[in-house]
Amino acid sequence: MGSEFFNRLRQRAVEIHVEDHLRSRLEKGDKLRVKLGLDPTAPDLHVGHLVVLDALRAFQDDGHVVVLIIGDYTALIGDPSGRSETRPVLSRDQIDANAKTYFDQIYLVLDRERTEVHSNSEWLGAMGAADVLRLMGKATLQQVLQREDFAERLKAGTPIGAHEILYPFNQAYDSVAIRADVELGGTDQLFNLLFGREIQKSYGQEPQDIAVFPLLEGLDGSLKMSKSLNNFIGLTEPPEQIYGKAMSIPDSLTEKYLRLVSGFSKDDVERTLALKPRDAKAALARQLVKRLYGDDAADRAEADFDVKFRKREIPEEIAELMADDPADLVATLLQAGFAKSRGDARRLIEQAGVRVNGDKANVDSKLKDGDVLQAGKRNFVRIRVR
Amino acid sequence: MGSEFFNRLRQRAVEIHVEDHLRSRLEKGDKLRVKLGLDPTAPDLHVGHLVVLDALRAFQDDGHVVVLIIGDYTALIGDPSGRSETRPVLSRDQIDANAKTYFDQIYLVLDRERTEVHSNSEWLGAMGAADVLRLMGKATLQQVLQREDFAERLKAGTPIGAHEILYPFNQAYDSVAIRADVELGGTDQLFNLLFGREIQKSYGQEPQDIAVFPLLEGLDGSLKMSKSLNNFIGLTEPPEQIYGKAMSIPDSLTEKYLRLVSGFSKDDVERTLALKPRDAKAALARQLVKRLYGDDAADRAEADFDVKFRKREIPEEIAELMADDPADLVATLLQAGFAKSRGDARRLIEQAGVRVNGDKANVDSKLKDGDVLQAGKRNFVRIRVR
Repeated sequence: MGSEFFNRLRQRAVEIHVEDHLRSRLEKGDKLRVKLGLDPTAPDLHVGHLVVLDALRAFQDDGHVVVLIIGDYTALIGDPSGRSETRPVLSRDQIDANAKTYFDQIYLVLDRERTEVHSNSEWLGAMGAADVLRLMGKATLQQVLQREDFAERLKAGTPIGAHEILYPFNQAYDSVAIRADVELGGTDQLFNLLFGREIQKSYGQEPQDIAVFPLLEGLDGSLKMSKSLNNFIGLTEPPEQIYGKAMSIPDSLTEKYLRLVSGFSKDDVERTLALKPRDAKAALARQLVKRLYGDDAADRAEADFDVKFRKREIPEEIAELMADDPADLVATLLQAGFAKSRGDARRLIEQAGVRVNGDKANVDSKLKDGDVLQAGKRNFVRIRVR
Repeated sequence: MGSEFFNRLRQRAVEIHVEDHLRSRLEKGDKLRVKLGLDPTAPDLHVGHLVVLDALRAFQDDGHVVVLIIGDYTALIGDPSGRSETRPVLSRDQIDANAKTYFDQIYLVLDRERTEVHSNSEWLGAMGAADVLRLMGKATLQQVLQREDFAERLKAGTPIGAHEILYPFNQAYDSVAIRADVELGGTDQLFNLLFGREIQKSYGQEPQDIAVFPLLEGLDGSLKMSKSLNNFIGLTEPPEQIYGKAMSIPDSLTEKYLRLVSGFSKDDVERTLALKPRDAKAALARQLVKRLYGDDAADRAEADFDVKFRKREIPEEIAELMADDPADLVATLLQAGFAKSRGDARRLIEQAGVRVNGDKANVDSKLKDGDVLQAGKRNFVRIRVR
C-alpha cells in the first residue's frame, strides 16, 4: 500500500513537500488527515477539480481521512472594503445550500465514509481580537507579501485591502484547527499550503506535508479551466454536453486530460494514446461520461454525438470563431462570412440551410461555447464565447 | 477666545490639518474633544512632553475637553511574535500603576476637571475577529505601508511582524471610539493622526483635525529627548537636578526650550532672549523648576547651583567628555587627561583635589550624564554618558 501509493502520488503531483517525510509516514502506515479547503461562493465543480479530488480519493483508498473545510467565515462577513463584487456577503442559508451542492458533486468522487466536513467559522468565529493579534504575530509581513498575487499587485500599484492580509492566516489556521497531516491543492495554492506549515509550527504542531497538482486548461486549450472563463466541463452537466465539450478540446490536450482526470490506469492511458487522435479523444469523452454517469449514459452520449457529427460528415478539424454576439445567429452568420447581408442570413435560416451541432436552427437560436455552426453543406465553424 | 487661541496654536504647531476647519470651529465656539494617546509602558514623563501637554492645557483653558487614552490593549497582550523585548506583556496591576504615575505627572500641567481618561482595551477588548476584519477593510495595505517606520524596514529588509499592521488601525479606531474632534501629537505621530482621520471617515464620522508639534532635543543638543537615550529632564526629578540639567543644555537650544516648554508668554520669551546667553539659560532653568515646584523651590535650586558652580568659579563653557566608564572615577580621570596613571588619579582623589558638581569626590563616586568633573583648580570637563 503506502509505498506504491506514494509513487503514484509522486507521478501526479507537481511538487510534494516534504517528500521524504510523507513517504516515510505512508510506509509506516500512519493514518493521515488530508485537508482540502473549499470556497463556498462557487458551488459548480468542473472537470478541472477532478485532478485534486482523484488524489484525495486515492488517499481514502489507502486508508486515510479527508477533511473538507468550507471557508464560510469570510463569505459570512463579505468584503469589508466593499471593493470586491466577486466576494459578496452570503447568508447562512445560502452558504449551506452552496455546501450541499458542493457535496452532491464531491461525493461523485469521494468516499463519504472517510470524509470529515467542517466550516471554518467553527473556530474563526470564536476568535477575539486578541487571538487575531496573536495569530498575525506568527509571521512577518514580508513572508505574507511573497504571495504571488500580493507581490504582483504591490508592484503594479493595485490596491490591496489591509484585511486581505488576514486571509492567508485564516486559511493556515484551518490546518492548526483540524490538525492536518497533509494538505492538497492546485499549484496556485502553493503559498497558502506552505504558509499553513509555518503557522502550524508556531502553534507547536508538526507541520503538514503538502502536495500541489497541475491546473487543467479549459476548452480553449490555453487558460485554466474555470467557471468565470466559461471554458469548463461541469461535473453535473448532461452526459451529451460533457461528451460534446470533451470532443471540442484541442488534440494537444487529450493526453493531459487522459493522465489527469480520466480516472484511467496508467496502462489504459498508454493504450488510448496509441489510437488515432480522433479516437483517443472519443475514448476520453466516453470515459468522462462513464465515470460520472456510468456505462449506459456513456453509450448514449457517444451515439448521440456520432449521429449529430460523424454521420453528418462534420469534419474533425473545424476553424474557430470568437463570436461577437452569440445570442444573435444572424449577426454570427455574417461575422463568419457565411452570408453577405442580414437578409441573406435570414433567408439561409428560413430555407433550413443552417444547423447548430447538426440540428436545424431558427432565427432565435442562441449559440454557446463549443457549438458547431454549419451553413449549407461545406461551411463549418466552431463557436467560441469569451 | 477662539480666534486668538487658534493663532497661538498655529505658532507652536509644525502642521495643522485642516487649518481652516479647526479655525472655524474654534471661532464658532464649538466645545471640542481633544485626544492624546499614551503608551502605558513608559511612565516617566520629561520636559519634552511639555510641548504637547501645554498645548492640551491651552485647549482646556479655551473651554475644551482633553481625552487621554491609555494604550493598554497591546501591552496586555504583549508582542505575540516574541521578537520585541521593549514590548513586554504587562499585568493589569502594572498598567494601572503606570497609569497612576502618568497622571500624577500629567496633572502638573492639565486641568483634572476638563480631562476624560479611557483605556483602549474598553473597546478593543470587546472586538471579535469579524470586527478586526471590518476595521482592516477600511484601508489599503499600501496606505499603511506609507508609515515611515514600515517603509524604512521594508526597504532595509528588516522583518515587520504582520500583527504590527494592526497597531495603526487600533490607534485610529481609538479616535472613532471617543469621537475625537482634534488629536495632538509630536511630528513623529503625523501618520497615525492622519490615519485616524481616514478611519473615522470610513465609520461615518467627521474626521478629526490634527496638530503636530516639534520634538524637543535632549541635553546632548541633537537627539530627541527620551528616557532611553538618557538625555532627558524628568518632570519629577528634584528641583536641583532639573535646574542643573537645564543649565547643561547647549546655548543654541535655550531659545527653543524657552519657546516650547518654559510656559513663558511670548513677551517674556523675547525679554529673556535679550539677556546674556548664560543669564537667559539661568532664567529658563529657574522657570522650569518654578512651573513644576513653585517659586520657593526655584529660589533654592538657583542658590544651590550658584554655590556649587558660580561661587566656585566653575567656568561657563566647559568641554564635554563622553565617558567610557562613568562608574569608574579613576578611569575617567585618566580618560580626561587629568592624571597620568591610575595611581596618580587615586592620589589626586585622596588629596581632595577632585570634585563632582563642586562636591568633593571619593574613589567610589559614580558619574552621571551632565556632571561637572573638576581636578585641581583649573581642569573641568562635563561628563556625557551614552
